[in-house]
Amino acid sequence: MITITTAAPLLQQYRSVRQWTEDICRPLQKEDYVVQPVEFVSPPKWHLGHSTWFFETLVLKQFMPGYTEYDPNFNFVFNSYYESLGARVIRTQRGNLSRPTVDEIYRYRAFVDAAMEQLLENPLPAEAKTLLELGCHHEQQHQELLWYDIKYILGHNPLFPAYAGEDGSGRPEARQQGFVEMPGGVYEAGFSGPGFCYDNELGRHKNYLQPYAIAKEPVTNGEYLEFIKAGGYQEFSYWHAEGWDWVKNNDVRAPLYWHKIDGRWQHYTLYGLQAVQPENPVQHVSFYEAAAFAAWKGLRLPTEFEWEAAAGQFNWGRSWEWTESAYLPYPGFERAAGPVGEYNGKFMVNQKVLRGASDYTPKGHSRATYRNFFHAPMRWQLSGIRLAKNIQ
Amino acid sequence: MITITTAAPLLQQYRSVRQWTEDICRPLQKEDYVVQPVEFVSPPKWHLGHSTWFFETLVLKQFMPGYTEYDPNFNFVFNSYYESLGARVIRTQRGNLSRPTVDEIYRYRAFVDAAMEQLLENPLPAEAKTLLELGCHHEQQHQELLWYDIKYILGHNPLFPAYAGEDGSGRPEARQQGFVEMPGGVYEAGFSGPGFCYDNELGRHKNYLQPYAIAKEPVTNGEYLEFIKAGGYQEFSYWHAEGWDWVKNNDVRAPLYWHKIDGRWQHYTLYGLQAVQPENPVQHVSFYEAAAFAAWKGLRLPTEFEWEAAAGQFNWGRSWEWTESAYLPYPGFERAAGPVGEYNGKFMVNQKVLRGASDYTPKGHSRATYRNFFHAPMRWQLSGIRLAKNIQ
Amino acid sequence: MITITTAAPLLQQYRSVRQWTEDICRPLQKEDYVVQPVEFVSPPKWHLGHSTWFFETLVLKQFMPGYTEYDPNFNFVFNSYYESLGARVIRTQRGNLSRPTVDEIYRYRAFVDAAMEQLLENPLPAEAKTLLELGCHHEQQHQELLWYDIKYILGHNPLFPAYAGEDGSGRPEARQQGFVEMPGGVYEAGFSGPGFCYDNELGRHKNYLQPYAIAKEPVTNGEYLEFIKAGGYQEFSYWHAEGWDWVKNNDVRAPLYWHKIDGRWQHYTLYGLQAVQPENPVQHVSFYEAAAFAAWKGLRLPTEFEWEAAAGQFNWGRSWEWTESAYLPYPGFERAAGPVGEYNGKFMVNQKVLRGASDYTPKGHSRATYRNFFHAPMRWQLSGIRLAKNIQ
Amino acid sequence: MITITTAAPLLQQYRSVRQWTEDICRPLQKEDYVVQPVEFVSPPKWHLGHSTWFFETLVLKQFMPGYTEYDPNFNFVFNSYYESLGARVIRTQRGNLSRPTVDEIYRYRAFVDAAMEQLLENPLPAEAKTLLELGCHHEQQHQELLWYDIKYILGHNPLFPAYAGEDGSGRPEARQQGFVEMPGGVYEAGFSGPGFCYDNELGRHKNYLQPYAIAKEPVTNGEYLEFIKAGGYQEFSYWHAEGWDWVKNNDVRAPLYWHKIDGRWQHYTLYGLQAVQPENPVQHVSFYEAAAFAAWKGLRLPTEFEWEAAAGQFNWGRSWEWTESAYLPYPGFERAAGPVGEYNGKFMVNQKVLRGASDYTPKGHSRATYRNFFHAPMRWQLSGIRLAKNIQ
Repeated sequence: MITITTAAPLLQQYRSVRQWTEDICRPLQKEDYVVQPVEFVSPPKWHLGHSTWFFETLVLKQFMPGYTEYDPNFNFVFNSYYESLGARVIRTQRGNLSRPTVDEIYRYRAFVDAAMEQLLENPLPAEAKTLLELGCHHEQQHQELLWYDIKYILGHNPLFPAYAGEDGSGRPEARQQGFVEMPGGVYEAGFSGPGFCYDNELGRHKNYLQPYAIAKEPVTNGEYLEFIKAGGYQEFSYWHAEGWDWVKNNDVRAPLYWHKIDGRWQHYTLYGLQAVQPENPVQHVSFYEAAAFAAWKGLRLPTEFEWEAAAGQFNWGRSWEWTESAYLPYPGFERAAGPVGEYNGKFMVNQKVLRGASDYTPKGHSRATYRNFFHAPMRWQLSGIRLAKNIQ
Repeated sequence: MITITTAAPLLQQYRSVRQWTEDICRPLQKEDYVVQPVEFVSPPKWHLGHSTWFFETLVLKQFMPGYTEYDPNFNFVFNSYYESLGARVIRTQRGNLSRPTVDEIYRYRAFVDAAMEQLLENPLPAEAKTLLELGCHHEQQHQELLWYDIKYILGHNPLFPAYAGEDGSGRPEARQQGFVEMPGGVYEAGFSGPGFCYDNELGRHKNYLQPYAIAKEPVTNGEYLEFIKAGGYQEFSYWHAEGWDWVKNNDVRAPLYWHKIDGRWQHYTLYGLQAVQPENPVQHVSFYEAAAFAAWKGLRLPTEFEWEAAAGQFNWGRSWEWTESAYLPYPGFERAAGPVGEYNGKFMVNQKVLRGASDYTPKGHSRATYRNFFHAPMRWQLSGIRLAKNIQ
Repeated sequence: MITITTAAPLLQQYRSVRQWTEDICRPLQKEDYVVQPVEFVSPPKWHLGHSTWFFETLVLKQFMPGYTEYDPNFNFVFNSYYESLGARVIRTQRGNLSRPTVDEIYRYRAFVDAAMEQLLENPLPAEAKTLLELGCHHEQQHQELLWYDIKYILGHNPLFPAYAGEDGSGRPEARQQGFVEMPGGVYEAGFSGPGFCYDNELGRHKNYLQPYAIAKEPVTNGEYLEFIKAGGYQEFSYWHAEGWDWVKNNDVRAPLYWHKIDGRWQHYTLYGLQAVQPENPVQHVSFYEAAAFAAWKGLRLPTEFEWEAAAGQFNWGRSWEWTESAYLPYPGFERAAGPVGEYNGKFMVNQKVLRGASDYTPKGHSRATYRNFFHAPMRWQLSGIRLAKNIQ
Repeated sequence: MITITTAAPLLQQYRSVRQWTEDICRPLQKEDYVVQPVEFVSPPKWHLGHSTWFFETLVLKQFMPGYTEYDPNFNFVFNSYYESLGARVIRTQRGNLSRPTVDEIYRYRAFVDAAMEQLLENPLPAEAKTLLELGCHHEQQHQELLWYDIKYILGHNPLFPAYAGEDGSGRPEARQQGFVEMPGGVYEAGFSGPGFCYDNELGRHKNYLQPYAIAKEPVTNGEYLEFIKAGGYQEFSYWHAEGWDWVKNNDVRAPLYWHKIDGRWQHYTLYGLQAVQPENPVQHVSFYEAAAFAAWKGLRLPTEFEWEAAAGQFNWGRSWEWTESAYLPYPGFERAAGPVGEYNGKFMVNQKVLRGASDYTPKGHSRATYRNFFHAPMRWQLSGIRLAKNIQ
């Protein structure tokens, strides 16, 4: 973790991050803040409270003399998964809590923000700055999750309400053709240099890669439609065994949010139901679908190291891209002591790495070394596909 | 079903029932309307919409020429269990719907109420009046459920918020002692005469009862505390086999809403956490608990026929009382055709009858022949215990 | 419980009951003794051991001075549901136990039988005789279950192996037509007089019955086929709500063991797959199916009291017949102290009564007052349908 | 896949592999062949049939003119997971099948063996030889699984029956001390050269490894007991998040088969319950336990590439060793067409690689490039722990 020694830019960063969270929520109805239609979705009001609790617990309670917590019950309500920070509401129960109300949580945010402003008037120890910066990046991660969850909540309502009135999609961009070819050899991966990164990106280290080629663009809706038409969801040989079970048990026939209505493919977007645009990148696919699509093409997904080594040579940033890599510690990874050590390391089993960023990623939050991770069946995030292949 | 031929009292009844539903909801925060913490609880906003949909579907759409439904999607959202009225949101999903919003549902109520007022300006066919009256009683049943669900939602929130500021409990009444003795013989049961009743109360018929005695008062919290102290929850021989499994699987140690805090028994009420008053009737017990308590006492629960035969001779009406009787059709019961026929008959298996009424029952809604019914483990309703025994 | 004071007929009874259990098992392969394809089926070897354990635990250990149990671990293995007799293998695990082996269990039977013979050489106290007689009837109940379980084990094997080589079915009998009419009035029900009965048949008591008619014969396969052809399994209005869920969740389309092969209905019998005979009584239907069939006919099932009052006037005994009655205690029923008290009483909730007997019932084991009981969805027993109706 | 052109050694190999399977089963009682106490265990009789079905389906039916299958139903019964080879009994149902009997399956084996002997009298096409060799290795894998499953079946029986009378354990060997140190650099991994290997070991490729050290010996029971005594199962910070859930949900407190009896740790072995020997390697731990133990030590597990690079410098072969590596395809891995392509590739997600071999591995079946794989919570295999660490 890189420490920063002047408080002013931190305050700036703090204010702008905090503001953006509330901006995202502005179009919501109060009811939209409350529900949790599925375990992995959290109610928006929970995100508002949890990101605030993070600052209160890790910064204010530790570094602000005389700080009195807003409400001692909130630790129980807003702790996400930190065993070191006490008991908590179990995840599946988040959507069962009507209280604290949305208004109350906004008051909680204002209370904590006022205390943070006051704290930042004076010089801070390096550890406090580190935690404050982590808190900002943490809240940015929850901003991205907020989008996913809002989309899920509205997109699974039988009324298909729109989040926003205008249509921001359907602007196809000029696309590059073909593959970037990369010779075999030793490449470095991982973060180095100044600026913030998460512990899971450290330390920079060497990998030997066989010669490979990686697509300049992600797979489009149009290409994915070909897979559907070719019977891709009906042919087991493209699928991992557990992917095939997932398809059959859930009767999966298309990416999440896709609906075939009167013979035409539409998908739910934040602007409501819209026609699927063939030239846009496919999104909301699981790892199983990404891998099956690649198998159908006779190609494969890149590893995260292949992706990172070539990232300077292709466009990325609209959708998170599944890689073949499992989410594992880099050589030399070490779990920090205390709650910060629970941030990443304890999830390093049975998840897949995604690389890139998405339309929902806050500005400046991602980078070529950033490692996102999800379980293989997850697809409510903006996940897409980039293909790779072996070359001589 | 008894039909009524003048519209004016019906309008009166309609208005007052509709108003009371909204009065019950007045103290709620908007968030409280939305959540469904467990399958058998419905979000208050769903009750508001469903009771309105009942009038719209069974009265307005059938009997008001030119009526246009408020929103064609609402049939899907607000149908409860009527197979004959089309597809519906599955019950467990009710709490996942943030839309329609609470405000929208109140607009829906106003829209339907205006149409109903207009409809009632002119003479109605008898069938319409019957359905309208059924709709009023139906909404009253949902008023009672609303209380249960509100109490469950607030009483299972870790903050234990109060619904109302004042304390309405703790007013012990003078209690009668002992048992009413009833000789053996043929008694009649079931509804007859003018006025409304449900189809499950028809028709009046004879039963032979052995001589029995039935307690003049329900079991109190104090008596139930003796059962707890005597190890009633730890001794299998008082319990039905499936009741014993229920106790162990759910680690049950007391009635619902009871919490032992610092060595003292408190219970959640609509006024917040309060001390358990020994002289008040015990509430929120399952059939299993009621039967186990009776077994511990060396007594038993009455049958619904024993209860009804003696109902004129003891006080009742604060809590619904579990009976030993299974919920079965009376001799001569017939299911009506169409959706009305789905009201009661299809639930006549694997449920137990409760008799009486509760503090939450709307005025005039119950009567001595009224048959309430719940599954044996249910206890979020105001269910209590009255004891009976055999005599010579 | 009626006590018997001469030991000789008891020894006779004991020997013949014990022998019959082993006769039933004779055609089995050793592997057939071991498996438990579904929770409610027990492995045949478990029945062999459990019925033996019953005598060892309740008779030998209590009444034979110096008796040493065969193996102290067997109490854990062969206790069924007696909380008062210690810990036990949970029911779903019975099919996971390869040991004790079948041969070992036969040795256990021989060991206990030898001790029982020795015990019976001398006069027995009345309580011992009562328990011994209960043990014989208990083993007869397990004989009937053995048949059900053997049929289930073989009938759910993809090879459909036959239990026996000859065909005992297909012998249609002369059938009576129409209904027995019974006037309204007070009728007695329950066991009285000499001979054995279970505690749930006591005591004899009066019931008032409305005038009714009850069919002289049970419903046939041919009549049931009409129900299937008429779309009975596709029309919700004939079904209880939970019956309809059961049909849909399990994709039920016919009685258990029925298979439509090449357009013809066949069913698995102990002689292998055979054509369904239209003139034979329908068997292997759940309560839901029985009630739905009756509703489709515009009729109903009898109550157990209606059944018993008319039992002298119709043929019964080939299949157990579902009644509308819930399995509840008779007036005056009392649970005995100790393990015998767990025999019946603790199951008196959420089950339905069946009356009659079946082809698998041991000779002399049933009578007109006998109350069998199963949960509503169960149908691996030989359950059939007799219709009833109201008359003026 | 390497092909072999002389049939004689193949016949030799075939005979000896087939014999060894039956030798393993010799001490079993017939009942032991039948049960499936948990989904991931298969009944021994199923292994006997499945390994035979593999030869019948992939070799005899393809390459022996005029071969008639033993029983056409056996494809349904003995197919494991091959989608390309038709429908099959679902895995959880294997233990519900009493037929075909054990004797019948031994007849099936003899029938297929006779046909194979006849087939091998004449020259075989290379593809047949390849499949035959694969069949032998496939059966060897099932031999190892047979041991696991037999141990599980007997070790989870409340009688704890022994498989064999003699005690083969408790012979501690001289152990080496300390770690092998390996400099950073490019190392090769994967199979090359003559002899058999699985497709998942191909092709040999380069990896860059940071400098590391790897223990010369696996972790012992004594060392693992220290972890238990130090409260390792109670302290979340050593565990992956899902590992911690696994511990709590399953109340895990020790390796599988360990029982603390009268204050002393014993474990079930094939010779019955025995005292845990501190100097023997710990076995029957899950990946979660292996990783938590390493975290408690301040060390880590090796990757499969670190393990393979150093395998020539330490002893291995008594227990399979968990690695940090996820089971993923090597660069250049390709799924073969047809059923053989379902052998390995479709499992390459959400599993961990284990390296080495175990006491139960058939002679000559493993090698330094062999990749075994299991899901993280699995521990009925002989899985152990080898530690690694970073060095400068």
